Amino acid sequence: MTQDEFSLIRQWTSRSSGQHGDGLSVGIGDDAAVFSLSPGMEVVACCDAMVETVHFLRETMNPSDIGYKAVMSNISDVAAMGGLPRFALISVAVSPGWSADDCQQIYEGIYDACEAYGVRVIGGDTVSSPAALTLSVTLLGEVEKGRALRRSAARPGQLVFVTGQVGGSAAGLDLLLRSAKKGEAVAEEWRPLAWFHQRPQAQVAAGRILAASPWAGALNDVSDGLASELSEIAEASGVRLVIDERSIPVANITRAYAIETDQDPLGWALYGGEDYQLVGTLEAAEVKEAELRFAEKGIPFTVIGRVEAGEPSVWMDREQGRMKIAKAGYNHFGGAEAGKG
Amino acid sequence: MTQDEFSLIRQWTSRSSGQHGDGLSVGIGDDAAVFSLSPGMEVVACCDAMVETVHFLRETMNPSDIGYKAVMSNISDVAAMGGLPRFALISVAVSPGWSADDCQQIYEGIYDACEAYGVRVIGGDTVSSPAALTLSVTLLGEVEKGRALRRSAARPGQLVFVTGQVGGSAAGLDLLLRSAKKGEAVAEEWRPLAWFHQRPQAQVAAGRILAASPWAGALNDVSDGLASELSEIAEASGVRLVIDERSIPVANITRAYAIETDQDPLGWALYGGEDYQLVGTLEAAEVKEAELRFAEKGIPFTVIGRVEAGEPSVWMDREQGRMKIAKAGYNHFGGAEAGKG
Repeated sequence: MTQDEFSLIRQWTSRSSGQHGDGLSVGIGDDAAVFSLSPGMEVVACCDAMVETVHFLRETMNPSDIGYKAVMSNISDVAAMGGLPRFALISVAVSPGWSADDCQQIYEGIYDACEAYGVRVIGGDTVSSPAALTLSVTLLGEVEKGRALRRSAARPGQLVFVTGQVGGSAAGLDLLLRSAKKGEAVAEEWRPLAWFHQRPQAQVAAGRILAASPWAGALNDVSDGLASELSEIAEASGVRLVIDERSIPVANITRAYAIETDQDPLGWALYGGEDYQLVGTLEAAEVKEAELRFAEKGIPFTVIGRVEAGEPSVWMDREQGRMKIAKAGYNHFGGAEAGKG
Repeated sequence: MTQDEFSLIRQWTSRSSGQHGDGLSVGIGDDAAVFSLSPGMEVVACCDAMVETVHFLRETMNPSDIGYKAVMSNISDVAAMGGLPRFALISVAVSPGWSADDCQQIYEGIYDACEAYGVRVIGGDTVSSPAALTLSVTLLGEVEKGRALRRSAARPGQLVFVTGQVGGSAAGLDLLLRSAKKGEAVAEEWRPLAWFHQRPQAQVAAGRILAASPWAGALNDVSDGLASELSEIAEASGVRLVIDERSIPVANITRAYAIETDQDPLGWALYGGEDYQLVGTLEAAEVKEAELRFAEKGIPFTVIGRVEAGEPSVWMDREQGRMKIAKAGYNHFGGAEAGKG
C-alpha cells in the first residue's frame, strides 16, 4: 500500500462507534487507549486472528463480511463469558492483492459489527504484509466481579441447552463454495444461508441473562461446532454430556438445503461451527425460569441434553442407539462409531 | 504447521509469567480471560503488529528477539502513558518457512519480555499463514484514574527531556545489516549495539515516576525516532519544541561506530527509532526534583530543549544555526533545510 492509502485508512478508522459516557478517557491517537470500568466489574479480554486462505476465502466472503466476522467471533467469545463487549483493538496486515477500496470495505464491516454491539474501536495497527491478509482482533468487555461463566462449571444433574439454531453457517459455506465453483450468484431461495455464514450474530443478550442468573452452569460459544464445544465443557468440567439428536435445533431452510443437496444437516450442526450461538448447562430445577427469561428477550432456547457423572465425553442418543461424539473431524461421524454406548 | 506442532505450541504457551495475586480470575483456556483492576485504576490498552520483511528481517533478528521485541514495543506504549503493564494477548500467524524450533524460540522471547516486566500472557491465537510470519500483540496495563500521560500536555515554558540514550538501536541495525551482507558474525567490540537493536528495554519505571508527579507534561516513547515523537507532541499540544543538538544523549559506542563507518549518529537519534526511551516535557521549575527522582531509580535523564508558544513544529539549535526538523525521512535531514529559523 502507498502512503496515500494509509492516509485513507486513517480516515476510515475515524468513524466512531460505541456509546458516549462509556468511560473512555483516551481514545485513538495516543500511544495507548485508557478507559475506566464500571464499579464492581472485571475486564474480559480475548483475541482471535483470521488469515486469508486459512480462515476465509475471497470467493465466499466480501471484504466487509471479513471485517464483520473477525470482530463478531471475538464478541462471541466475550458473550460466552457472560460479558458485555465494550472496546476493540484491531490489527490489519494488508497484502498486495487488496485494493484501497477493499480495505475501506473491510473497515466498514469492522465498524458495522462494532456499532451493532455498542463496541468502540480504541486502537490497532494497519500494516503492509507481503502475502495473505491477516486480521487480528482483541475484544475487551466487562462482567460483574466473580460472575464470568466458565467451561468448567457443568455439574451432573444439570441440563444442556443451546440458543438459536445451529448448522446454518456451515450450510451457508457449502452453498457459497458451490455457487463460486459454478461462477453463479447464490440462488434467491437460499440467500438466508449465505447470511448465516457471512453475518452471524453473537449472543450477548443471552450471555447477560446467564451471567445475572443463579442457575447458570458452564458456557461456551459455537465457533467450532457443537461436538467441539460440548467436548470442551465435558473436559473442563470432568463430566459426561448426553445430548438427544432430535432436539438439536436446525432451521427449516438448513434442513431443506440438506435434502436438496443430499447432505446431513446434523454434521453441520456438530462439526460445522461459526454459528456463534451459546451452548451451556443450567440447573434442571430452574429450566422453566430460564425459558421465561429467554422468551422475554425473544431468544430461541432449546434443551438438548443433560449432564451425567462419568468419564469426560460427549454422547448422542439417536434412533439407532447411543453413540459417542468425536471432538472434531466430520469423517469420524458415521455408522461405524454408532451404538458404542 | 502440523497438529503436533500446534500441540507443542500449546505446551510452550503454558509457561507462566506475571505475578501471583495479580487479579486474574480466568486465564488461558476459556473463551476469554477475566481480570480485576486494582482500586482507583483505569485500563491502558494498545496493540501493535510486526510482519516479516516489513518490520523485521530474519537476517538481523533471532526468532527469540522477534518475540521479545513484539512484546517490548507494546510495553513501551504502556510506559508512554505512565502505565504499569500487566497482561498480554498474543496472536502469531506462522508461515511455512518457520520450524517448530523457531516457533518455540519466538515464544521464549515473548515470555522473556513478559517476565522481565511482570506481564502475564492471558490469551491469544496461534494460526497458520501462507507467507510472512506476523505477530500481533495487545498489551493491557493500568494507570491511576486521570493520571495517564498524553501527548497533548506540553505547555510553553516547560522543558523537553529524554530518558537513557538514543540512536543506539538504529546503529545496531546498521551493524547487523552490514554483518549479514558480509556473512560475518558481529564483531565483539560492537556487540552492545546489536543488543540495543535486538533487546531494547521499555522505560516503565520512568513512566511511573512521571505518572506520580505533579510536574509531568506530555509523554511519548521513542519508537520512530526523536523527530517523529517530538512532532507528535508538538502537533497534539499545539506548541513549538526547540531542542539543542549538543544535549541529545548518544552513547559513546554509538558515536564511535558512526566515526568508524563514516555515518551521522544524529540521524540515528532523530530518525532511527526503536530505542524505546521516553521523551516528554515537564515544568521547568521542577527540573531539580525530576533529576532527583530519576537519579534515585538509576534512570539516565537529560533535558534536551524547551517548549515555546508558536506554530506546531520542532526546531533544533546547532552550531550552524537553528534548523527545522522534518517529521520523518532521513533524506530530509541535511544542509539544504538548515538555517531556516
